[in-house]
Amino acid sequence: MSAAGFSQDDARYMALALQLAKQGWLTTRPNPRVGCVLVRAGEIVGQGAHLKAGEPHAEVHALRAAGSRAQGATAYVTLEPCSHFGRTPPCAQALIEAGVTKVIAAMVDPNPKVSGRGLAMLEAAGIDTAHGLMQAEAEAVNPGFNRRMRTGLPYVRIKLAASIDGRTALSNGVSKWITGPEARQDVQRLRAQSDAVITGADSVRSDNPSMNVRHSELGHWQARISADALMQPLRVVVDGRARLAPPLKMLDSEGSVLLASLADYACAWPDSVSVWRGAAVDGKLDLRRLLLELGKREINEVLLEAGASLCGAFIAQGLWDELVLYQAPKLMGDPARGLLALPEFTAMSEIPELAFNDVRRIGADLRLTLTRVEK
Amino acid sequence: MSAAGFSQDDARYMALALQLAKQGWLTTRPNPRVGCVLVRAGEIVGQGAHLKAGEPHAEVHALRAAGSRAQGATAYVTLEPCSHFGRTPPCAQALIEAGVTKVIAAMVDPNPKVSGRGLAMLEAAGIDTAHGLMQAEAEAVNPGFNRRMRTGLPYVRIKLAASIDGRTALSNGVSKWITGPEARQDVQRLRAQSDAVITGADSVRSDNPSMNVRHSELGHWQARISADALMQPLRVVVDGRARLAPPLKMLDSEGSVLLASLADYACAWPDSVSVWRGAAVDGKLDLRRLLLELGKREINEVLLEAGASLCGAFIAQGLWDELVLYQAPKLMGDPARGLLALPEFTAMSEIPELAFNDVRRIGADLRLTLTRVEK
Repeated sequence: MSAAGFSQDDARYMALALQLAKQGWLTTRPNPRVGCVLVRAGEIVGQGAHLKAGEPHAEVHALRAAGSRAQGATAYVTLEPCSHFGRTPPCAQALIEAGVTKVIAAMVDPNPKVSGRGLAMLEAAGIDTAHGLMQAEAEAVNPGFNRRMRTGLPYVRIKLAASIDGRTALSNGVSKWITGPEARQDVQRLRAQSDAVITGADSVRSDNPSMNVRHSELGHWQARISADALMQPLRVVVDGRARLAPPLKMLDSEGSVLLASLADYACAWPDSVSVWRGAAVDGKLDLRRLLLELGKREINEVLLEAGASLCGAFIAQGLWDELVLYQAPKLMGDPARGLLALPEFTAMSEIPELAFNDVRRIGADLRLTLTRVEK
Repeated sequence: MSAAGFSQDDARYMALALQLAKQGWLTTRPNPRVGCVLVRAGEIVGQGAHLKAGEPHAEVHALRAAGSRAQGATAYVTLEPCSHFGRTPPCAQALIEAGVTKVIAAMVDPNPKVSGRGLAMLEAAGIDTAHGLMQAEAEAVNPGFNRRMRTGLPYVRIKLAASIDGRTALSNGVSKWITGPEARQDVQRLRAQSDAVITGADSVRSDNPSMNVRHSELGHWQARISADALMQPLRVVVDGRARLAPPLKMLDSEGSVLLASLADYACAWPDSVSVWRGAAVDGKLDLRRLLLELGKREINEVLLEAGASLCGAFIAQGLWDELVLYQAPKLMGDPARGLLALPEFTAMSEIPELAFNDVRRIGADLRLTLTRVEK
């Protein structure tokens, strides 16, 4: 096993495997997105992607495509092949049986308890292995799965939309629409790739949103998936004081709802709704425990779509990984509503710092993607 | 004269002329930045840029370089050649005398009173002329000169710096530093290219800034100009109630200061300071008249570097053209100070709209350049 000494050809094949992995962008949950390319004597003899939990892994698809030509081939996989029997037999075993002679993995299994076992199984069978090629890119394909395997917590992405002066609504609450239709379509795509969407009871009470993914509003992502194949994220509502009650638009659309509360509900909920009783810290729902609970439920990526208070709480408690801010080229002024309720800081050293990861035009708006900088 | 039918070669030479024009980025004021390329039989025989008011125009530099080879050449100029005797003889005349046979101008003179006269003078001498090639690019090279020639008003660029949630300082006033050193260098460059910098008395009283251009802080623009050649912008302070008095750091550095006030000063000011008595609207200094006064003083580009109140006033009154917003990847939260004091809007149709013109990383920060959208 080594992390260096890869050739340009190696990089080219791994880049292809990463492209394949992205085919499962909206559908592999709770599994990771994985791609595999089999190359023999400079010829691609098999390609595969994992598309859906319970269906074959990427390696199996690639081996099936290659048939006997897998014999003597090198396998490029974006994630270390699995070594355990899950819903499918171990891929390491399948690669051994197919006669592959070398396996290059972009990264090892992120679960520290099993990391390296797949490669070790291959090595024990006399197969040459290496890992670390395009690791950063492979990490970025599965931010949620990797985070959950390493920490038990999902990857938390906070979505915000504001004018360039950081305002989300006029002082009278009017906010339709700050961003344009392309940005709103992009949010649909973020929801579609998320295992869960979290919002707050205040948002539900004031806006009564569906919070579901609508295939017709996916924009150019519509071509990537059929309406039938679309998976709805678990909709999680932080409702510490159990103030919500039917009817809610959320209940009218497909998909499940989880109410996270500190109290019992007096009302009855339909079957699509489950209630999770959380613990309190400082009189409020413990958000960290909520995230751990979601991790236990195999939630990889969480999208937080909430107001200034709940978003501010996640940020102030350090319970977040990424911020996606849609900025409209508008000015709303200081009387308008602010973006984030954070504590009153007294020194610049106290404020949360981030790093720009991606900046992109989305229609007339701008999408800033930032990641958290640990201090 | 025509605006169409240009060849790829024409575009190539005009692009070069535009590059030459930018050589005068920091030094031509109050004149426009102009470049000229002379081409004969597919060969560039002369190039020139206007660098400093009172010194030769771009055409003259190019003709001198070409010598007798200007005979029969085509001249590519980023601005219609002048037809009047100013500090130098008319360039149209010089082109005629040199035997140039064709003149292509990116744009006609923006002053509607003289627009077209230079080209007409050339046409009258039997020279073929055309205009409109890369006009948008040529307009962008002289936003201030063009605006002043057309309207009498300078081009107003508002510089702001904030966290991504639109905050400029903590609630206790602490703001050093939100943006990084590269962004602050970029502001030095903005100042260096501006004929005037406007700020408010409140900012002067609280920060006591120099507001000058410091060659040592120009970053990679240092290589573009010597410390000696650097021109200081006129520093304009909006001080309606005449509250300022020496000593001020502004008075210690090179360059002139203009105090715009509604009242007389009790104190004496050094020679570098002049006072302009403005008119009042709603009890405040009429900012439009101030801009017209600056236009009369041949100020092309104004940089507004002020607080939320004064910047908000310029925006609310529509007295601005461009906004340059440096965004630091930081979150300061709602208790922190807001970016712009604007009126309390009640409908989204009332808020100022802009368009993203340029988005760029500057060190760890982002620079958004937006232009005003007329509604």
